[in-house]
Amino acid sequence: MKKGEFSFISDIATMFGSLPHHGFEPIGDDCTVLSMGEEALVMTTDMLVEDVHFLRGASTAEEVAEKSLMVNISDVAAMGATPMATLLSIALPKSAQGEWAEGFMRGYYEASKREGVALVGGDTTAAKDKIAINVVAIGRAPLSCIKRRSDAKVGDAICVTGKLGISSKGLVDIMLGDMNTEAAKAHRRGQARTAEGLWLGRRSEVHAMMDISDGIASDIKHIMEQSGVGARIFMEQIPTDYDIRYATTGGEDYELLLTLDNDSYEEIAEALYNATGTILTKIGEITLGSDVEWLDKGEPTNMELRGFTHF
Amino acid sequence: MKKGEFSFISDIATMFGSLPHHGFEPIGDDCTVLSMGEEALVMTTDMLVEDVHFLRGASTAEEVAEKSLMVNISDVAAMGATPMATLLSIALPKSAQGEWAEGFMRGYYEASKREGVALVGGDTTAAKDKIAINVVAIGRAPLSCIKRRSDAKVGDAICVTGKLGISSKGLVDIMLGDMNTEAAKAHRRGQARTAEGLWLGRRSEVHAMMDISDGIASDIKHIMEQSGVGARIFMEQIPTDYDIRYATTGGEDYELLLTLDNDSYEEIAEALYNATGTILTKIGEITLGSDVEWLDKGEPTNMELRGFTHF
Repeated sequence: MKKGEFSFISDIATMFGSLPHHGFEPIGDDCTVLSMGEEALVMTTDMLVEDVHFLRGASTAEEVAEKSLMVNISDVAAMGATPMATLLSIALPKSAQGEWAEGFMRGYYEASKREGVALVGGDTTAAKDKIAINVVAIGRAPLSCIKRRSDAKVGDAICVTGKLGISSKGLVDIMLGDMNTEAAKAHRRGQARTAEGLWLGRRSEVHAMMDISDGIASDIKHIMEQSGVGARIFMEQIPTDYDIRYATTGGEDYELLLTLDNDSYEEIAEALYNATGTILTKIGEITLGSDVEWLDKGEPTNMELRGFTHF
Repeated sequence: MKKGEFSFISDIATMFGSLPHHGFEPIGDDCTVLSMGEEALVMTTDMLVEDVHFLRGASTAEEVAEKSLMVNISDVAAMGATPMATLLSIALPKSAQGEWAEGFMRGYYEASKREGVALVGGDTTAAKDKIAINVVAIGRAPLSCIKRRSDAKVGDAICVTGKLGISSKGLVDIMLGDMNTEAAKAHRRGQARTAEGLWLGRRSEVHAMMDISDGIASDIKHIMEQSGVGARIFMEQIPTDYDIRYATTGGEDYELLLTLDNDSYEEIAEALYNATGTILTKIGEITLGSDVEWLDKGEPTNMELRGFTHF
């Protein structure tokens, strides 16, 4: 459970914190972690609701399936773990019980095959009007490879994989009726940095890691809060092909946001590229304190004044 | 995933059966089982949708919470495992985001506390109109204690815990406007046989086990199919305080249905009662073949002709 998602009850973590934890780590990361000797299991869950997360008219059933799997696989990858299996629950109104459901299962199968994950459980039920989908992903890693949000260190380089902003640019394209741009397609399908997460998990120079689901302006705060550190971001270094606002405050990129030992940045970036073909870009550094400082070519920038809003 | 729940695609298990399983047992039991050396983890998930599984006017938020937890805990107990933790996803329309949500979380906390389970992850999201809830329960047991649907043996006694039919009688009461009968309350809240499942899991004389979610007439077929056996039921022995139809074809009792070595029945029933206060009743026996034979005081009975329908 990501912090703040149960914001309708502010003290949910405190409330449940008094219960026996049976070896599970407390709420607060991309996945929960269950240590079993030197191995760890990680688990995460996400719910997608029709007309909130997707429109039946704008995405195919296959794309919805692919995205519902990918957002969960991304959380497993962000822990440095290998995705193993998923559980799928789906509530289907009558209008979706034939062709749509079959398309969904085909898409879910193809995405599962590509990621090498099993389907090990689930539930199907009727719904009145809207489709609801819940996916649970389960992964595994040596306990020593698990990456958390709480392990950033002062002086670390802040890095991201790939390029940012394509998904939120795609959402705007779709809203404007441009359904078939590259960005629109990327938004509808999602992708998970599975190989990159696994590779980075195995490097001890990598300290904190998470996936970017709400945009770096929002997500970096989770690492800062959980690690008790501040951050400085060099805006001109943020890798994007689009308006910088998509790249900073747009959601659903599912790239990885990580901190690593600053001296190791160049070597790790090169080795990651050689192993996976994915570029790792340094976009900032972890600082003392609890504030985030946005610099545009060295000049402090007020995000609010520049009209950065959450899409 | 229970067999048949993905009936809209008949070959779902075959379709996904070709994917790597990463140590998980194939679909087909109350929970999936992941062996980790001599330990096993079990996991299950259930989705509850407003106006399909509950009515906001007929159940309190606390009762919906309790039931959503209990149906999953019941699946863990039916494997002979100890429930450890849950993940909770909930989609809330605006009308449920204040008081209802808080009542739900209070009820979920109280039920979690009573069952001794942690809340280790989840997701909350908006919904357009209807509440959707998905719960995942995770349990643990020595691998040797795990009870499956596939282990019934010819000659076994077929047994049930407690009394049957109260939940479906309660549903009828609610439909007729009698909201406050004992049966109506039992239907709204649900109960899981956690202590009994755990105790029975530790007895090697117990062979197959599952929880009763659709009524024994339907659920016994899962054990028969998966174990490759038949069954003979002695209807006059079925423990119920209500019309026999509620007890055989009514759902959501969440009692345990199990088979055990016939010679051990009396000793196990007595020891279970001493340990948990719950009565174990023999209602039939496992036979050769693949048919189920219903006897009423020794006379063969045609269930169809007697108007047994699924509630």
